[in-house]
Amino acid sequence: MERRQPPQTEEGWYVLHDFRSIDWDAWRDAPERRRSRAIEEGIEYLSAAESVADAEEGESATFAVLGHKADLLVLHLRPTLADLDALERQFEGTALAEFTERADSYLSVTEVSGYMSQDYFDEDAEVEDTGMARYIETRLKPEIPDSEFLSFYPMDKRRGSEDNWYDLPFDERAEHLSSHGDIGKDYAGRVTQIISGSIGLDDFEWGVTLFGDDPTDVKDLLYEMRFDPSSSRFAEFGRFLSARRFPPEDLGAFLDG
Amino acid sequence: MERRQPPQTEEGWYVLHDFRSIDWDAWRDAPERRRSRAIEEGIEYLSAAESVADAEEGESATFAVLGHKADLLVLHLRPTLADLDALERQFEGTALAEFTERADSYLSVTEVSGYMSQDYFDEDAEVEDTGMARYIETRLKPEIPDSEFLSFYPMDKRRGSEDNWYDLPFDERAEHLSSHGDIGKDYAGRVTQIISGSIGLDDFEWGVTLFGDDPTDVKDLLYEMRFDPSSSRFAEFGRFLSARRFPPEDLGAFLDG
Amino acid sequence: MERRQPPQTEEGWYVLHDFRSIDWDAWRDAPERRRSRAIEEGIEYLSAAESVADAEEGESATFAVLGHKADLLVLHLRPTLADLDALERQFEGTALAEFTERADSYLSVTEVSGYMSQDYFDEDAEVEDTGMARYIETRLKPEIPDSEFLSFYPMDKRRGSEDNWYDLPFDERAEHLSSHGDIGKDYAGRVTQIISGSIGLDDFEWGVTLFGDDPTDVKDLLYEMRFDPSSSRFAEFGRFLSARRFPPEDLGAFLDG
Amino acid sequence: MERRQPPQTEEGWYVLHDFRSIDWDAWRDAPERRRSRAIEEGIEYLSAAESVADAEEGESATFAVLGHKADLLVLHLRPTLADLDALERQFEGTALAEFTERADSYLSVTEVSGYMSQDYFDEDAEVEDTGMARYIETRLKPEIPDSEFLSFYPMDKRRGSEDNWYDLPFDERAEHLSSHGDIGKDYAGRVTQIISGSIGLDDFEWGVTLFGDDPTDVKDLLYEMRFDPSSSRFAEFGRFLSARRFPPEDLGAFLDG
Amino acid sequence: MERRQPPQTEEGWYVLHDFRSIDWDAWRDAPERRRSRAIEEGIEYLSAAESVADAEEGESATFAVLGHKADLLVLHLRPTLADLDALERQFEGTALAEFTERADSYLSVTEVSGYMSQDYFDEDAEVEDTGMARYIETRLKPEIPDSEFLSFYPMDKRRGSEDNWYDLPFDERAEHLSSHGDIGKDYAGRVTQIISGSIGLDDFEWGVTLFGDDPTDVKDLLYEMRFDPSSSRFAEFGRFLSARRFPPEDLGAFLDG
Repeated sequence: MERRQPPQTEEGWYVLHDFRSIDWDAWRDAPERRRSRAIEEGIEYLSAAESVADAEEGESATFAVLGHKADLLVLHLRPTLADLDALERQFEGTALAEFTERADSYLSVTEVSGYMSQDYFDEDAEVEDTGMARYIETRLKPEIPDSEFLSFYPMDKRRGSEDNWYDLPFDERAEHLSSHGDIGKDYAGRVTQIISGSIGLDDFEWGVTLFGDDPTDVKDLLYEMRFDPSSSRFAEFGRFLSARRFPPEDLGAFLDG
Repeated sequence: MERRQPPQTEEGWYVLHDFRSIDWDAWRDAPERRRSRAIEEGIEYLSAAESVADAEEGESATFAVLGHKADLLVLHLRPTLADLDALERQFEGTALAEFTERADSYLSVTEVSGYMSQDYFDEDAEVEDTGMARYIETRLKPEIPDSEFLSFYPMDKRRGSEDNWYDLPFDERAEHLSSHGDIGKDYAGRVTQIISGSIGLDDFEWGVTLFGDDPTDVKDLLYEMRFDPSSSRFAEFGRFLSARRFPPEDLGAFLDG
Repeated sequence: MERRQPPQTEEGWYVLHDFRSIDWDAWRDAPERRRSRAIEEGIEYLSAAESVADAEEGESATFAVLGHKADLLVLHLRPTLADLDALERQFEGTALAEFTERADSYLSVTEVSGYMSQDYFDEDAEVEDTGMARYIETRLKPEIPDSEFLSFYPMDKRRGSEDNWYDLPFDERAEHLSSHGDIGKDYAGRVTQIISGSIGLDDFEWGVTLFGDDPTDVKDLLYEMRFDPSSSRFAEFGRFLSARRFPPEDLGAFLDG
Repeated sequence: MERRQPPQTEEGWYVLHDFRSIDWDAWRDAPERRRSRAIEEGIEYLSAAESVADAEEGESATFAVLGHKADLLVLHLRPTLADLDALERQFEGTALAEFTERADSYLSVTEVSGYMSQDYFDEDAEVEDTGMARYIETRLKPEIPDSEFLSFYPMDKRRGSEDNWYDLPFDERAEHLSSHGDIGKDYAGRVTQIISGSIGLDDFEWGVTLFGDDPTDVKDLLYEMRFDPSSSRFAEFGRFLSARRFPPEDLGAFLDG
Repeated sequence: MERRQPPQTEEGWYVLHDFRSIDWDAWRDAPERRRSRAIEEGIEYLSAAESVADAEEGESATFAVLGHKADLLVLHLRPTLADLDALERQFEGTALAEFTERADSYLSVTEVSGYMSQDYFDEDAEVEDTGMARYIETRLKPEIPDSEFLSFYPMDKRRGSEDNWYDLPFDERAEHLSSHGDIGKDYAGRVTQIISGSIGLDDFEWGVTLFGDDPTDVKDLLYEMRFDPSSSRFAEFGRFLSARRFPPEDLGAFLDG
């Protein structure tokens, strides 16, 4: 068995999905003064993060998580790991943090790969400001869409004795991903995605974050993709978390149910 | 390997299985006044949910869970995720919540698929009020039956190198499901089911909630289905939770053992 | 692949394995008065359960669990789930419960299947009081033997792409189980078993509870069975818990080490 | 597929690996008086166990565990489960226990099998006091060696659709184990082992406890064995725990870092 | 199936990855005096460890961990397990430990194997001070590089029925690893690695610790390696932890966010 050709990749912003559970017992028991301060400092932290006050560029957004796995998701994209490290620890310094526990997290970095944009990698270092370059830019430095619904899951490509993604020839993989991407195009305008690589950073190979106003669009997209060989034969999924975006200033309403 | 044809689906109400454990130590130690208030606010919350005071339509029901996995299951069906999000957090605001911890949960959405009702999807958007349309309606907006016993489990369809559901031709899948459904029909009147899709919403692909007055009917049905290829070759089951329905006004009796 | 014929089954008593851990720190710190009351109410609960004061029929027994997984096992068999539900919650009302936490549990129901007693199912509803009927009765309403040692584990039958129990013809399964049962017969008088079904009730398909005065008899039996195809090719085992029976009135000695 | 011939086995002492974590926060905060008492009662318990004051025969030893999985391992071998049960609960009565939590445990029983000593099983019940009998005795009632390093792990033999230990003919299994044992012989004097069976007693089929003064001898032995078919094709390993022996009277030094 | 030839190995320093979570709630609530003392004693411990005040030789370094899995990683390399055992427990004696809990750990030992340096093992015991000897020395007694980023993960070689590393002939394994190593050479100067063996010491067979100033270099290296058969067919990865190095004297800044 020979070594297969890896795709070239280019990385952009680092991504931290910071999932927190609210300690509702502590919240109910806290005097009004502590609750007010938690809300105030929480809004301050979240607003500052969303306005990227801490770095030259990046994106942040706040979400309410459905179910028992977590309550709050703060999603950060920043140019360096140091930025994310600082944001994660700064949160712990707020009065809001007193009412939260870290429930989960995922660390990754936005990437584009040579499967879908080989031209980009083949060209000279000095890329012209073409559509391709702009497309690459939006994948490496994505804007978090305003959509209400978010679905996050990590995934691997299978390395089984029969279905082994990493043993497929480059062209076959590229074809799979191109076909896979075609499904996504049918959902343009309804579902937006941020695909970020996490090999060496976290437990799976990629993190997938999907955004849409209608959760059933996300469900339909993923269901349709599951019948595509790149999922049906080669995808291994981790946990799925569902969340709804809210503006930092609604933190009080979020906490008061 | 080619991409297989996905079934069309239509989604109805979102479903939250909200499993809670009672902190029995805290309950025993609490003064009568706090216990009364917890029961009062608990009944108020559960009754309001069951009467769908919070939304235009939907269903809710309350169950006692057997075994150590949880004690209380509040099952909600509502038109939007926002409705479920609100219900989940409103619970945290009650005095009952002080005696509970979230033990588990599952998020899904009711669905009908083109496997079993392709006609429905083939016809014009304007469906006539036929039996089919009424059947679809009862699957998308199901009534929670009055049965005493509930069994819940999440499930996936297998994507193995040999038994790969998502690589079967559409007709073969439809045939499997039709045959599978025939077993269910033999239990009509004794076992009712709510099948809800959860791709992109939670860790498995479907949630299955079965209702029956006699738990052995549910057991017999599932045992019989396990010999059907769609289960024996293609089903991957998650955890199973068993529960018994009780009316909100019995909350005090439930808590007092 | 065709649908295979399921065996007929008949169910008897519901079974709850209620595993609890003792909070030894709390126990050591508790004043004599609280300890006495815990022992008193514990003995009262356990004795009442063992004498089946709560239902028309059934069985209960108390065990000390070895190792870190749990400390106490209360095993209940009762005609209805409601009975088990009540017993589980009544325990929480005792002063003993203040020193325990639920560590594990398993819910199942005794069953006989048509594999081994097809005659029983083939005959008219009105079964004569033959040996077969008495045998069935002892499996559906088993007496918990007085043996000192108990081993409990849940299990599934494998549904692999090659070794798939649920895809075997009925006769082959019956033959496997008959051969399997023959091993058990060699241990008659030394090892007693309660096999209870749990499809739809708990995470595995069966719970197996073995009783014997000499734990090595149980070990030898299970080791021998592991070489039988019905285990070597088709069994998937869950966790194993080992325990030693003690009479309720020894609860104080149990707690005082 | 036919039923394979199991080996005969004979069992000796029951074995409890009792892993505990130290609550270092509580330890640091405790007044000198409580710490002294904990050390005193701890030494008393451990010394009594090591001198087998509680039973007619047996062995016990104390170890410091490396890493986060546990801090303390108390290893007991005794003629009956009742002995182990008593030792486990007596520990909870000591002042030392106030600073520990059970982190893990393993229950098993020493065994010899007919693979390697069929003669022993073939001979008359009245075994002559030959070398074989003495060898058997050291396996059933092993002395815990004075070595500094201990490695413990549980293991199963694989029951896969291709590599199925329990479907191999007896002679093939015996040959595998004989070959496997030959590797061990090269480490005689450097690595000592206690192999104990745990089918029906705990989650895996065997517990393996290796002793050596130089941990790299244990590592080299296990690495070499991994290339032997009985491991490479047929072994499934659980967790590994590493520990260093210390005499009970050093408990104070252990706790004070 | 025959027994395969294992590589010779030589072991160097023992390695402890000691992952700790900060109890941020306790930290926020602690009076200034306790925080100062924690920082002071923490710096003292970490500085002493990094200057190897406790042993004749070795290396230590301190890292901030990204995400919810842990906050602090103290990495120790020392000549004996006793050294690591002492360092682990000495940490618990510091005022810093009051604000930490052990979140994870990994125990291993640096090794060189005969795959890549058979000459070394073939030569006489008295190795000349050649380049080979110096290379071996840097692998057995590695210096922790000054790089900002660290990625740690444990791994096994697969023992599947088709892809079984331990059933490959020696030369094939050597060739795989040589090819695998070639990828690493392309990253010389950008990514440094410490490969340490852990068979018999911890749950996996090896620990891999990668260092680089740019995390994307580590990601690119591992991605490229994943297409190499020794990973694509034979590697089983555990969890991945990402961390950023900081000097002990920055502990206060680390804790204050």
